[in-house]
Amino acid sequence: MDTNTICAVSTPAGQGGIAVLRISGDKAFSICDRIFVSGKTGVKITEQPAKTFCFGKIYKDSEVLDEVIVSVFHAPHSLTGEDTVEISCHGSTHIQQEILRLLISNGCRLANPGEFTQRAFLNGKMDLSQAEAVADLIVSGSAASHRLAMNQMRGGFSKELQHLRSQLLQFVSLIELELDFGEEDLEFADRSQLIDLADDIQVVIARLAHSFSVGNVLKNGVPVVIVGETNAGKSTLLNLLLNEDKAIVSEIHGTTRDAIEDVINIQGIAFRFIDTAGIRNTNDEVEKIGINRTFGKIEQASIIIWMIDTTHFNTEIEYIADKIIPRTKHKKLIIVFNKIDKISPEEQQILEEEFLPHVPAERIYLSAKYKKNTEKLEKALLKAANLPELNTDDLIVSNLRHYEALTKALESIDRVKNGLQTKLSGDFIAQDIRECMHYLGEITGEITTDEVLGNIFERFCIGK
Amino acid sequence: MDTNTICAVSTPAGQGGIAVLRISGDKAFSICDRIFVSGKTGVKITEQPAKTFCFGKIYKDSEVLDEVIVSVFHAPHSLTGEDTVEISCHGSTHIQQEILRLLISNGCRLANPGEFTQRAFLNGKMDLSQAEAVADLIVSGSAASHRLAMNQMRGGFSKELQHLRSQLLQFVSLIELELDFGEEDLEFADRSQLIDLADDIQVVIARLAHSFSVGNVLKNGVPVVIVGETNAGKSTLLNLLLNEDKAIVSEIHGTTRDAIEDVINIQGIAFRFIDTAGIRNTNDEVEKIGINRTFGKIEQASIIIWMIDTTHFNTEIEYIADKIIPRTKHKKLIIVFNKIDKISPEEQQILEEEFLPHVPAERIYLSAKYKKNTEKLEKALLKAANLPELNTDDLIVSNLRHYEALTKALESIDRVKNGLQTKLSGDFIAQDIRECMHYLGEITGEITTDEVLGNIFERFCIGK
Repeated sequence: MDTNTICAVSTPAGQGGIAVLRISGDKAFSICDRIFVSGKTGVKITEQPAKTFCFGKIYKDSEVLDEVIVSVFHAPHSLTGEDTVEISCHGSTHIQQEILRLLISNGCRLANPGEFTQRAFLNGKMDLSQAEAVADLIVSGSAASHRLAMNQMRGGFSKELQHLRSQLLQFVSLIELELDFGEEDLEFADRSQLIDLADDIQVVIARLAHSFSVGNVLKNGVPVVIVGETNAGKSTLLNLLLNEDKAIVSEIHGTTRDAIEDVINIQGIAFRFIDTAGIRNTNDEVEKIGINRTFGKIEQASIIIWMIDTTHFNTEIEYIADKIIPRTKHKKLIIVFNKIDKISPEEQQILEEEFLPHVPAERIYLSAKYKKNTEKLEKALLKAANLPELNTDDLIVSNLRHYEALTKALESIDRVKNGLQTKLSGDFIAQDIRECMHYLGEITGEITTDEVLGNIFERFCIGK
Repeated sequence: MDTNTICAVSTPAGQGGIAVLRISGDKAFSICDRIFVSGKTGVKITEQPAKTFCFGKIYKDSEVLDEVIVSVFHAPHSLTGEDTVEISCHGSTHIQQEILRLLISNGCRLANPGEFTQRAFLNGKMDLSQAEAVADLIVSGSAASHRLAMNQMRGGFSKELQHLRSQLLQFVSLIELELDFGEEDLEFADRSQLIDLADDIQVVIARLAHSFSVGNVLKNGVPVVIVGETNAGKSTLLNLLLNEDKAIVSEIHGTTRDAIEDVINIQGIAFRFIDTAGIRNTNDEVEKIGINRTFGKIEQASIIIWMIDTTHFNTEIEYIADKIIPRTKHKKLIIVFNKIDKISPEEQQILEEEFLPHVPAERIYLSAKYKKNTEKLEKALLKAANLPELNTDDLIVSNLRHYEALTKALESIDRVKNGLQTKLSGDFIAQDIRECMHYLGEITGEITTDEVLGNIFERFCIGK
């Protein structure tokens, strides 16, 4: 393990009231003492009691660079398990950059993405699936994805896997014991009990693996596509769904529309709106390619919103119907009739009765402009998403790496069951059980390689 | 003064490893105790010793929202002078938003921009010019603007103003004493000594007011305009100047080019590149308007870089020369001959000898593409900026409000001197001295109004 003392800015990029730099490693205290002078007391960081902070100044070439607050964490009582200092400075990018430069010139190395969490893992402060949950927690943008990450970080998932591994270990021990006494043809392990145990394990692993379909949607958002003519009001609708609930965020963070574009949070569930071009019947070859691409994107969605401008019925609608309806199999279709403020109740009734009556779809009549009935669309989206209510203790797999490992573990345990039923030789069965344990161990990090670790931590942000 | 307990996210907007929320006010501890449970000790924040932090969990509806570190600052030993808590949480926008919601529903109010610093001022932790320096410090993007803000924050400027005010107070006291004994025609104050004192004060105020021309440039950057034909290589040059020095920032912060576009930091001095359209001779009326606007922008610049594509001499160059050269009076002109890698040394020599030999300008021959001689351009820019070397103790005014107050104070002190010389009645002189003191007091905040305070703090970011 690399024992350099590392440093990074841990707060979000850019300028703010304050920023926090984190320094971790054997030399964290002594390096900080070279650039920091504490306010009144003159106490060195090396002498500072654990779990306290103090005010002081950072010096660069005997000139005050900033007035800061320094928090001191003594090993092993820190995130990384190493001596750690957190410097809370004024949040100008210039100051952040200069303090980093000072730390580096005094012996720190700039941390790699996720390196603080990686050290926490390597120092036994958390297992690998918990470390991965930290990254998920930071990017979580909805209550559901947050809860998933939090559950995983709190270790419920790891406990379940440890339980499985200890059962498997007991299992394989019995079989390996038989192998040791191979010539005597003993059976320490009751075969029917072993089959029951394999059944139990198979059920648990299968449940975890299958939870990925829900977990993945909760984590990344329910994929939704809006189709329709370009002037049907798609962007007004998106802006509307991105409503007051988000206002508090924008107010606080100056969050730009760009950053959260097209991911909309409805009652704690994220909906990921896939961008598409408007659809129309055209002979233009280039435009046709664009429209075909839109049809391709419909494939990625699980919910299709078809927006219709009720004031503007034309032949395009038939064209779109012909193209869309065959593509809605195994998906949910919501037909949104927009601009109902512009039509009479009689006209709306005709629509309700006569517009493609045999097509199975939720139908919403709304006015995006006047914010009428948009709450009905939200309800329809939540209903179409059809997601289970999550409890604090639910174990849901949302990480592709975990899903792949569980799938492989499931294959191994299937072979174990088969082997037991067909009375396969004990050493083959033992090998399959060991393989199953290996895949489960990959998830928690009991079995790991540098390459796997590298792949996992490079998707972290720097400073975490 | 509003005594609500206020809260805000103090770290930069967006997602990062960690984020810090700040809570300040009488109820800061008790409100935090409603949502926070400390890790092992179970100690309440209300009972937590000052200058310590502790690990624990934030709960929402009996569900763990996040694991956080809470730092406790007891009044008056905090930024605001009030009881303050800083919560360091995982930096997802969801978590930041949810903790804010929890704090608000438990009795906090969302802080206004700059409200923490405003409270620091109102509670006597800093004077107004120091409070303003905090805002400047946060937005400072170069060593020079950082040093200006730091000097002001450390109070050197305030001390100078206090010294002036105490001299003026002594002055006015003497004159007002005479007025009390008015009928007896006494002169407590030696008139020639008073004139000397007024002279001294005038010199100091004038020096401070005049320093604004430098201070403003240091704070906002030296205004530079690049003119030339559109294909002369302007954007290649800008990218080049925005060089390795910035790399460390982008690496760390993921700083986007957009955020720092066209402000370039050369050896600690910021150069602000004013965007212009390319210039060419045209009959198109709309395009002419754009080009005239470019000429207008030249007026705002103090340095003009005229970029010439040495491989592409044509009639446009004469047209541009005719338009630019008359506009370079009182400004510095740098002619940049680009793409010199494409011409022979002989051709370059001809250029050096024959291209507008009588126009006073720095001439730089470079290749932006091959990064040849660009360091010469940097030197030429620094030379053209002609800024003094700043010392730690230099008092430079960089704030427009301070400059305006100083200008008015200078007018008052001029009237005082005049009055003394023309033997004006003492009560008029006293009035002018009081007026001068008033303007100086406006800077430090000894004299202030809610409106002035509102204007000052609304330009802060929230969370500071």
